[in-house]
Amino acid sequence: MSGTLPPPQVSLKDVKTACLSARATQFRPSPTLAITAKAKELKAAGKDVVSLAAGEPDFDTPGSIVEAAKAAIDGGQTKYTPTPGTPQLRQAIVDKLARDNGIEAGIDQIVVSCGAKQSLFNSVMTLVDPGDEVVLFAPYWMTYVDQAEFAGGTVKVVQTDPRRAFVPEIADIEAALSPRTKVVVLNSPSNPSGAVFDRETLEWLARKAVQMGFWIVSDEIYEKLVYGQRHVSVASLGGGILDQTVTVNGCSKSYAMTGWRIGYACAPKPVAKAMSSLQDQVTSNATSFAQAGAVAALSMDPAETERMRMEFENRRDLVCSLLAEIPGVHLEVPRGAFYVLPDFSAYLSGRISTDTELANFLLETALVATVPGSVFGAPGHLRMSYAASGDDIRKGVARIAEALSKPSP
Amino acid sequence: MSGTLPPPQVSLKDVKTACLSARATQFRPSPTLAITAKAKELKAAGKDVVSLAAGEPDFDTPGSIVEAAKAAIDGGQTKYTPTPGTPQLRQAIVDKLARDNGIEAGIDQIVVSCGAKQSLFNSVMTLVDPGDEVVLFAPYWMTYVDQAEFAGGTVKVVQTDPRRAFVPEIADIEAALSPRTKVVVLNSPSNPSGAVFDRETLEWLARKAVQMGFWIVSDEIYEKLVYGQRHVSVASLGGGILDQTVTVNGCSKSYAMTGWRIGYACAPKPVAKAMSSLQDQVTSNATSFAQAGAVAALSMDPAETERMRMEFENRRDLVCSLLAEIPGVHLEVPRGAFYVLPDFSAYLSGRISTDTELANFLLETALVATVPGSVFGAPGHLRMSYAASGDDIRKGVARIAEALSKPSP
Repeated sequence: MSGTLPPPQVSLKDVKTACLSARATQFRPSPTLAITAKAKELKAAGKDVVSLAAGEPDFDTPGSIVEAAKAAIDGGQTKYTPTPGTPQLRQAIVDKLARDNGIEAGIDQIVVSCGAKQSLFNSVMTLVDPGDEVVLFAPYWMTYVDQAEFAGGTVKVVQTDPRRAFVPEIADIEAALSPRTKVVVLNSPSNPSGAVFDRETLEWLARKAVQMGFWIVSDEIYEKLVYGQRHVSVASLGGGILDQTVTVNGCSKSYAMTGWRIGYACAPKPVAKAMSSLQDQVTSNATSFAQAGAVAALSMDPAETERMRMEFENRRDLVCSLLAEIPGVHLEVPRGAFYVLPDFSAYLSGRISTDTELANFLLETALVATVPGSVFGAPGHLRMSYAASGDDIRKGVARIAEALSKPSP
Repeated sequence: MSGTLPPPQVSLKDVKTACLSARATQFRPSPTLAITAKAKELKAAGKDVVSLAAGEPDFDTPGSIVEAAKAAIDGGQTKYTPTPGTPQLRQAIVDKLARDNGIEAGIDQIVVSCGAKQSLFNSVMTLVDPGDEVVLFAPYWMTYVDQAEFAGGTVKVVQTDPRRAFVPEIADIEAALSPRTKVVVLNSPSNPSGAVFDRETLEWLARKAVQMGFWIVSDEIYEKLVYGQRHVSVASLGGGILDQTVTVNGCSKSYAMTGWRIGYACAPKPVAKAMSSLQDQVTSNATSFAQAGAVAALSMDPAETERMRMEFENRRDLVCSLLAEIPGVHLEVPRGAFYVLPDFSAYLSGRISTDTELANFLLETALVATVPGSVFGAPGHLRMSYAASGDDIRKGVARIAEALSKPSP
């Protein structure tokens, strides 16, 4: 694993006295940070940088959500709320899970957090003991690795095949499972690959979890962004899997609310209780009036999220068709989220032999920001976000094609 | 220690399979939760409950802060910000620390979090290794214990004397220090005791920290609520202590912004970097538009916070004078925060032999909510908040006096 990860940010030699805890010397900064910081620098220096690196919708937060939050501030909802969230928001989440996901839960199974990231942190810290195995599917979002290791877990990676649009083979999942498996982290649709797991794979995994006794932490933050098929929540599949699943979601990606920091988890009651008690020691409640905005989001007209979804689907088609024209770049059309993860390994040689070097080259010479795949366990690839305007997508891909068409620098 | 703490909330026998991590079985709910939940139940049942249990100002958030946040939402500041906070807010904090606290710091020493609680969590996780000793002053805020133990630290408690208004004796601090001391957590003014450490004690501690090489985590969240003396930031005391101090603060108590969840830490650069990287794995940034509100708070006319301070000082005088009239109740007038921690041990006997039983008795029979001192390491005491109206303070204390005047139930 560690070969593909950026080095820890702080080394003891930087520190006047050996002050950092051993764990702190292992904290890694967000791996996309370096490249987005560089992109910002270039922009600040007047360069016309096209960013295909963003992890957030480029839409504004819908008006009904904004108005609900402002009304909450004006109405004095500026005080502490219960740590797991206001009763109103937890009820709205219960209703949403029943309506959209086929998950029947009580209000005391819901814990609202400062973003889905914290819900994942709570899940892993509550379930994973040192020595327990945590199974991830590569390409993965780096935070899963960081959180599993923070909990003392041992990460087991199931590689997936780009030619299968990064959906794993059941035999490969089975090979990664063991009696030490405590948690399998699902992320369908996936950041960074856009993979959407098919129902059969999910049903197999659910049965296996119940048989073997491991848990599924299902990060469904991109559920509203699925193209050409339907999102399936693993917790809805029956056969006891509801009692062994933590379903994680939030408002960031579906409602263009990344800055609001509202995530949530639905878990069996004892797990939810422990998650809430942990959160009580780390942050307590999410921002009170952002919670009011989230209530409005979850009861919004589905036509509005559908409009966003269709816009993303059009952009996906655009970026895929443009990338298909670059010789040697391989990409299966992904079924979800707002990322593509094309294979650029045909262009890696000489002075540019890694995806990180390629991403830097493209930023410096073509002024296009992308994220190197190796930070997601997908060396040779670049993650490109289509949470960008059609014009930016066209301009960005054209510049990449142009830069790659020249003799290797 | 553990004798005074509430039991863990979730025991393995509640759980269908032994699913919780060992650490999760130790997570304690916020100890004030049970009594505030009971108070709410009684209120919901139509009872006229007076709450002296609150940990937040009863004022509304000032208008200039509210307007700044609403303008930020309208202006589209609803996206991710850098994990350690917007440059604007970090600069406002740098300016504030120089102006109010005599602390000179750069913007890269500031990490904005989802509340001061998270800043404390970041500090402890970044500094404390398993086996390191963390020194606390009792009575203490329970979260310090929970976080230190979560990091694997061993908690050493310095008892303080109610007759010295809970300011520790230097000899007692010295006795608690050892070569294993990694962090001393300061909280002046203190929740729950209102203690304000004098400059001499702080200077002694700062010298000792530099000599012995331990760190000070200074939680200054109540700094604006000091009566009859001046707040001293330990990091400002010179002699190298700035390089061994994490100063923690936030907007909650000084600006009536508890629900906004904006805290911050100022630390030497390598520590700040590690804290930001940790936060990147737990929550990422605090709510974007709440950060805009915080910028307005930190640049607010000091006359407004002074008005709040004077109001709290009047209430402190009121509650202290009323409590002084109850025979057998002992209390030195505290110098800060918005709590009093009177000694009720003269009333503990028979069926009501602990402060927890007394708090329950007062809630049930006198309909006054207080918090038992034992959850702060101060058995025999009750914490009473004067973040309540003068009328509620009068009514609450009168009811307590009345209930206690009757023969023991």
